[in-house]
Amino acid sequence: MPKISHRAENMPASPVRKLVPYALQAKQKGIKVYHLNIGQPDIETPQTALDAVKNIDLKVLEYALSEGNLDYRTALKDYYHSLGFTDLTTDNFIVTNGGSEALNFAISTLCDDGDEVIIPEPYYANYNGFTNAINVKVVAIPSTIDTGFALPPIEEFEKKITDKTRAILICNPGNPSGYLYTREELQKLAEIALKHDIVVISDEVYREYVYDGKHQVSMFDFPELAENCIIVDSESKRYSMCGARIGSMITRSKKIHDAAMLFAQARLSPVLLGQIAAAAAHHDDEAYIREVREEYTHRRNLLVDLLNGIPGVICPKPKGAFYCVAELPVEDTDVFAQWLLEHYSHNGETVMVAPMSGFYSNPELGKKQVRIAYVLKEEDLRRSVELLNDALQKYKIEFNL
Amino acid sequence: MPKISHRAENMPASPVRKLVPYALQAKQKGIKVYHLNIGQPDIETPQTALDAVKNIDLKVLEYALSEGNLDYRTALKDYYHSLGFTDLTTDNFIVTNGGSEALNFAISTLCDDGDEVIIPEPYYANYNGFTNAINVKVVAIPSTIDTGFALPPIEEFEKKITDKTRAILICNPGNPSGYLYTREELQKLAEIALKHDIVVISDEVYREYVYDGKHQVSMFDFPELAENCIIVDSESKRYSMCGARIGSMITRSKKIHDAAMLFAQARLSPVLLGQIAAAAAHHDDEAYIREVREEYTHRRNLLVDLLNGIPGVICPKPKGAFYCVAELPVEDTDVFAQWLLEHYSHNGETVMVAPMSGFYSNPELGKKQVRIAYVLKEEDLRRSVELLNDALQKYKIEFNL
Ligand SMILES: Cc1ncc(COP(=O)(O)O)c(C=O)c1O
Ligand SMILES: Cc1ncc(COP(=O)(O)O)c(C=O)c1O
Repeated sequence: MPKISHRAENMPASPVRKLVPYALQAKQKGIKVYHLNIGQPDIETPQTALDAVKNIDLKVLEYALSEGNLDYRTALKDYYHSLGFTDLTTDNFIVTNGGSEALNFAISTLCDDGDEVIIPEPYYANYNGFTNAINVKVVAIPSTIDTGFALPPIEEFEKKITDKTRAILICNPGNPSGYLYTREELQKLAEIALKHDIVVISDEVYREYVYDGKHQVSMFDFPELAENCIIVDSESKRYSMCGARIGSMITRSKKIHDAAMLFAQARLSPVLLGQIAAAAAHHDDEAYIREVREEYTHRRNLLVDLLNGIPGVICPKPKGAFYCVAELPVEDTDVFAQWLLEHYSHNGETVMVAPMSGFYSNPELGKKQVRIAYVLKEEDLRRSVELLNDALQKYKIEFNL
Repeated sequence: MPKISHRAENMPASPVRKLVPYALQAKQKGIKVYHLNIGQPDIETPQTALDAVKNIDLKVLEYALSEGNLDYRTALKDYYHSLGFTDLTTDNFIVTNGGSEALNFAISTLCDDGDEVIIPEPYYANYNGFTNAINVKVVAIPSTIDTGFALPPIEEFEKKITDKTRAILICNPGNPSGYLYTREELQKLAEIALKHDIVVISDEVYREYVYDGKHQVSMFDFPELAENCIIVDSESKRYSMCGARIGSMITRSKKIHDAAMLFAQARLSPVLLGQIAAAAAHHDDEAYIREVREEYTHRRNLLVDLLNGIPGVICPKPKGAFYCVAELPVEDTDVFAQWLLEHYSHNGETVMVAPMSGFYSNPELGKKQVRIAYVLKEEDLRRSVELLNDALQKYKIEFNL
């Protein structure tokens, strides 16, 4: 049998995907599974976006420009102008197959083998995938559940900088922690990045979903970082159109833009139909975003309260995105999450959560934690927590915890 | 300014894209440009595919499974059964964002830095992009225009195998050459691959478009290669739906499949709407493919005849795909192709072709050649060749050739 590459051998299994076979088995046994394990909301895609697709008047589904078609880049530019970044033109945007591809382009454009990217942990698990695929090393900055995942003093980032460091990658607001960076923290990050001439890659795909009247501060708010900043954006979460596969990589740096374009050209084109859907959504989004934000606020409050009501569960309140991290009274959430699918059910139902081990550079740190996405409607969230509570009790008895 | 990576610095500019700015300038001057430079056919996408998109009954555009949704993988499996590969199940397929991503996954799954892939040249230029992005080396096997790009004896491949060789990558039928591999050649390739336990990656995205009553032999016709073969497929060309971004990576090897799935999971999901369009097209394709094949046959015959009628132009007749390679009576087709856009027009029209330098590992080999795609209808092809003929005469006079 031929060898597979080390890069493939070392690819981390996605923590939210590795339980999928067990979920399929449960479903085959007729068990209903509540999916709190992935960021796939049940929120409806804007009707304008769906209508734009349904009303296409095209004879040929042609390649889009490698950088994305002008119509959609214009919609994006207008949206960024509405955020206050009025210096941006359509030339600053590269449309990508989801935020995923934008991350891929950003890291590939900046990093060679053995180079380092500093990332506060816990972090979006696929950052491990994109870095590993091209032999780039993640250097983690720890934050912990007992402080609500507050960042350590920003100076800690500077201590980790070596001559191999090419970028600091932040997710704001954060998946999985829901952490929201303050302007002061971002200001300090900007200073450090400039001082060492490295790039801040700011993953802002959850920008709209920040609660309690707070607002996200974008890394683009620091114009002095023009040559040293890449924004990763996506329509997946903003408009609940994850399957449209539309994201973007945005930078004021012509040098970085032009280099990233070479990767964009190699894969020819981003998706045409998704651009049509997303452009339409942008033309009609204010009420939608407001309503969805209210819905997530409601779900978050409900979920966090219910979880903290379960004996032995600790769940800090996230400030943004639509996940929370909960510590459970079990030894190993990888084992527990699998048990939920393999051996547990109540009235023919069970619940699927994401073990947190894969969200840390050191899996041990996440051993007692799970990530729970509040992507389901109130009724389903209530039932899911009921199941979790019941399951924890049965698990305790079964394993004498 | 921060550094960009060597992998970005070394990325080859796509030969079909690097002229795009000049084409835009021409268009801004009001000049009509006939695009023979890219594989974007004017052929209509099947109506069933467009209707499937227009009739979607979805409230949420959800992520698809990382391996692709079962509906579409079932359509793919049925299609491969119709080709005679009845051992394949839906588990053999990974749905990708175009054949482009399938190539990316295949190379990443097999190759580490410094590893080698053997490719007969001239070859699809983006093979350079995908290999370069992860520091994999292309080892070229030359074929030349004067023999109609006939392959050298297959034994030549074996001479290039080193302990770094991980795969032989072929394109059958070939872009740009239109070359069609014989069963005997593929048989020998299979033997060599098995002997050295390396993988044959067979890019068969033009499988349907083979002319003169001939048929493509797929690498899957060699079951002894079960563990050593990856097929790259795409709906882009088959159904003229390039912008749908649907391809697939197919292998009988569970080891390779499972490894590639880790890359698929990191980017979450292939496009949802494209899968819906492609599944519909597969359910209703026989007449469509037959008609399109006839149309391409007609265009090829016409184009090759017209081109060979221009003094000093040599153009062998391709057996498949929808490109031909022509040698022109100029010194450097990179310069000439740019001149066509920057300085030439006739009655407000010009023509865009792809210089062949980027299709060879050594750009010198393609210096007098262009690739011309027969993706436009008869009338436009006729006018394009007229323009080319006229332009060549004026170019000769202008530069005293
Ligand atoms: C933090 C973060 N970044 C990027 C992505 C990528 O999403 P997509 O590729 O759908 O845009 C996700 C998806 O969950 C995410 O959580
Ligand atoms: C030989 C070959 N392989 C793969 C591709 C990738 O096409 P896509 O990503 O649209 O499937 C192309 C496109 O021109 C091609 O010519």
